[in-house]
Amino acid sequence: MKKKDNLKLKIIPLGGLEQIGMNITAFEIEDSIIVVDCGVSFPEDDMLGIDLVVPDISYLQANLDKVKGFFITHGHEDHIGAIPYVMKEVNVPIYATKLTNGLIENKLKEHNMLTKVKRKVVKYGQHINLGAFRVEFIKTNHSIQDAAALAIYSAAGIVVHTGDFKVDYTPVFGDAIDLPRLGEIGKKGVLALMCDSTNAERPGFTMSEKTVGKTFDAIFSEHTNSRIFVATFASNVDRVQQIINSAYKYGRKVGVEGRSMVNIITTATELGYISIPENTLLDIEELKNYPDEKTVLITTGSQGESMAALSRMASGMHKKISIKPGDAIILSSHPIPGNEKAVSKIINELSRQGANVIFQDTHVSGHACQEEIKLIYSLVRPKYAIPVHGEYKHLIAQAKVVEELGYSKDDIFVLSSGDVLELNEDGAAVVDHVQTGNVFVDGLGIGDVGNIVLRDRQHLAEDGIIIVVMTLESGSGQLLAGPDIVSRGFVYVRGSESLMDEAKQVLNLTMDHCMQKNISDWGKIKYEIKDALGEFVWKKTKRRPMIMPIIMEV
Amino acid sequence: MKKKDNLKLKIIPLGGLEQIGMNITAFEIEDSIIVVDCGVSFPEDDMLGIDLVVPDISYLQANLDKVKGFFITHGHEDHIGAIPYVMKEVNVPIYATKLTNGLIENKLKEHNMLTKVKRKVVKYGQHINLGAFRVEFIKTNHSIQDAAALAIYSAAGIVVHTGDFKVDYTPVFGDAIDLPRLGEIGKKGVLALMCDSTNAERPGFTMSEKTVGKTFDAIFSEHTNSRIFVATFASNVDRVQQIINSAYKYGRKVGVEGRSMVNIITTATELGYISIPENTLLDIEELKNYPDEKTVLITTGSQGESMAALSRMASGMHKKISIKPGDAIILSSHPIPGNEKAVSKIINELSRQGANVIFQDTHVSGHACQEEIKLIYSLVRPKYAIPVHGEYKHLIAQAKVVEELGYSKDDIFVLSSGDVLELNEDGAAVVDHVQTGNVFVDGLGIGDVGNIVLRDRQHLAEDGIIIVVMTLESGSGQLLAGPDIVSRGFVYVRGSESLMDEAKQVLNLTMDHCMQKNISDWGKIKYEIKDALGEFVWKKTKRRPMIMPIIMEV
Repeated sequence: MKKKDNLKLKIIPLGGLEQIGMNITAFEIEDSIIVVDCGVSFPEDDMLGIDLVVPDISYLQANLDKVKGFFITHGHEDHIGAIPYVMKEVNVPIYATKLTNGLIENKLKEHNMLTKVKRKVVKYGQHINLGAFRVEFIKTNHSIQDAAALAIYSAAGIVVHTGDFKVDYTPVFGDAIDLPRLGEIGKKGVLALMCDSTNAERPGFTMSEKTVGKTFDAIFSEHTNSRIFVATFASNVDRVQQIINSAYKYGRKVGVEGRSMVNIITTATELGYISIPENTLLDIEELKNYPDEKTVLITTGSQGESMAALSRMASGMHKKISIKPGDAIILSSHPIPGNEKAVSKIINELSRQGANVIFQDTHVSGHACQEEIKLIYSLVRPKYAIPVHGEYKHLIAQAKVVEELGYSKDDIFVLSSGDVLELNEDGAAVVDHVQTGNVFVDGLGIGDVGNIVLRDRQHLAEDGIIIVVMTLESGSGQLLAGPDIVSRGFVYVRGSESLMDEAKQVLNLTMDHCMQKNISDWGKIKYEIKDALGEFVWKKTKRRPMIMPIIMEV
Repeated sequence: MKKKDNLKLKIIPLGGLEQIGMNITAFEIEDSIIVVDCGVSFPEDDMLGIDLVVPDISYLQANLDKVKGFFITHGHEDHIGAIPYVMKEVNVPIYATKLTNGLIENKLKEHNMLTKVKRKVVKYGQHINLGAFRVEFIKTNHSIQDAAALAIYSAAGIVVHTGDFKVDYTPVFGDAIDLPRLGEIGKKGVLALMCDSTNAERPGFTMSEKTVGKTFDAIFSEHTNSRIFVATFASNVDRVQQIINSAYKYGRKVGVEGRSMVNIITTATELGYISIPENTLLDIEELKNYPDEKTVLITTGSQGESMAALSRMASGMHKKISIKPGDAIILSSHPIPGNEKAVSKIINELSRQGANVIFQDTHVSGHACQEEIKLIYSLVRPKYAIPVHGEYKHLIAQAKVVEELGYSKDDIFVLSSGDVLELNEDGAAVVDHVQTGNVFVDGLGIGDVGNIVLRDRQHLAEDGIIIVVMTLESGSGQLLAGPDIVSRGFVYVRGSESLMDEAKQVLNLTMDHCMQKNISDWGKIKYEIKDALGEFVWKKTKRRPMIMPIIMEV
């Protein structure tokens, strides 16, 4: 792509820099915008009742005519999960490798949108010309197959985006990361590298996925007399392949439990990303015909998710499978930050039922550690460094690694969501900030739960609600019924009757006061009630329930 | 204490075995009960709005005349926090070492109970005769000073309770754990060992507290040009001592921030457990007269607690101190399980403000790892092993370590709270189970928030509440006003007006139906409303808010 003087490329992260998840980045030059990834994020602790968080794409909606297409680096939720929501607003073609496309199709099917969205399957090495951009897909390794780095060519220069990656010289399936091509592009001269920061705090190299297979073999050889369960991420197809390999080697039949696990194994098998020896994978019901020590069950729930198969088994709520003393249960994942307690809880529950829970050396990360990050920078040799994918501390950690490589602080850009970084060979700077943020998905509603609703939920969760109802006579404003008190989530048992009786007296006095003063404005009456009852309840209980006066008129 | 044939000792954990916290164990023989420790626990994620959890002590209340006294192993909240609550019901003397007693006194003062509770300060090596028991305090090491193991002598034999401990051959203050005395008691013949399980999953030895001092020195020598903050647990007086030592060595003045930190340093200084060179500790206001690079601030908040000093500084909410770029901030603690995300959040916030956050090698645990556990078993050589202090998985991990030492499974007792273990030289068995559990403290209320209230709070937190009010005519049952709808924590913005309008139509139809069918029973009307509105809302939104019909009569 020919360079044009003075033209500048804009890079605008629309999400995913403040927290893991919701990766979506816009690239803009001349009349064209392309977008890399389109992920969801999962709700934080204070987002009560929220199911999912999707990105605010106001910027794309405001520039709809420019948006040419989405390029997806791999099939994890934090990179594809928002596609059905975003495509309703910005319907442009999606480019992805085969397995990634298969997982996107599953997602679109769930939302009845398969026929409504154009998709193109791309091979490694292929270049896509789209508007003022050309995009090349480059083979990488990650904890899901078919992950790609992207080389994004424009008149302002080349940007390399690693996607999520690690360097695996001995992958379970397919090739190692295409280091030579990264070197070749590096030789052409790269404007900027956007590199995965997830493990930038960790020194050294991430171990090969194959090392986990060796651990599985060792565990299988030590537990020849018991049933084996392996819980892992549904999307880690290579991990599943290795479990099946060990099972086959030790003469065990394999069952699969958990909806997402079944779905992904089906897709991966159809597309040729997993190979299962005949008569090895059985239905759960068939598996029961084999002795325990001849079976392996692959299941979801390694993060202690309360609705996943393993949790239901642990708590005795699973319809088909219950834990027996002596079962060997391998947790093949590390807790994602925030899930530590849930994982501990499930280990405790499984242990209580006599299971032998194993979690040492049963997992490797899918993300590059410091030495791998250095390797990629040393091949690509970008003019500018833009750490991506991680919490702020991870981005900063990559920035430090890059500084160690001799980069000047001025050439490293730790961006926030919404920052507009403008760059070409002559310079780079954050020149603007556009609207971004979290859009909450709650049930069928998208964006209809806002901060006020969340604040109310927080308040209700903390101290409950006291509702005060009364009926006034129209015209005269005389009290005809009430005030009555009802509460939920406040207090309930012994002592609360007398508290409520006293509260009612407070209300009666307040109403007397309002009547005497001829206060007839409902707003004022409600204010007086909130004030008097709030103070009374605080004095008596040191709690601040939500107080909600409701007035009716007849 | 002379052994009597056939007499059996009962050991009854009344809390603290299912979760970290709320340690309290009853020992009973003949006419006597003594209790070891009296801790609180902090609320789990699903205990919405709860401030503290204290143990259910029904068993002690039912045996009030037998209870002779409480023996406290050390001054951490999970061992002393419930004292003010429990002493209101079971007022007997408390025995503890000097610093532990000082911290108990602080706690009693807060509850205006100092004069109401008898306390005895005990020295290491001292024996207390109480009812049918004799109790000896033995020096140990832990992340708070003055920690003790207890040797509990009774006619059924000797039980050794380690309390929380580690083996520190080079403690910062005072002596190393009294291994010889443990050996001596072991030689007498010990019936049972109750040993700390917290780190039983970790191989090796816990490092000496002194290694952290070396790290501090290294960090101070590398950051001579910036202000230094150190956040740690208030109760870790040795840690504070080492920060002060490094500060003094590098010519810095020290300020202290955070109420609990100030309180504990005051108590520890008064009692002689910390020694501060003159003119080193300054008021925060005075500290401002010194250049940044000549100051150190010791603060609470190393766990990311939202109300602690460090969090308030990080979010710019602290009145006196704000973070500046270049500040070196040492987090001198590991996240307690469940706090990982909060700690990450504060690291991100501090980093965003340009601070340099340091957390490598800045903490050691206060609990024994596997080799230390083996050492204690090898000295004490108990007949029975009773792992204590930890989640179930930790207790099981200690049981495995003990098995490796050659113990039979039959001699290891992994108890649950409420289990009554009866034991003497002839045998040991769980013979009964007494009532135990969590009592919630919420504001001033103790035990008045139960499971129904929590379930309601959970429901309110998830999907909010819809309140339906109406006024009926007395006698005729005719609808005079309403039904009106008010919601909180449900949905709020665009689209919700029409949803509410439709909901109102549903309600009108329901009420018409009730009137036609002459349904006048309020319970039935409410049921019909809940049913119809619930179904409508679920169909439209896939949410299940709490629906609360309120009927008034005039």
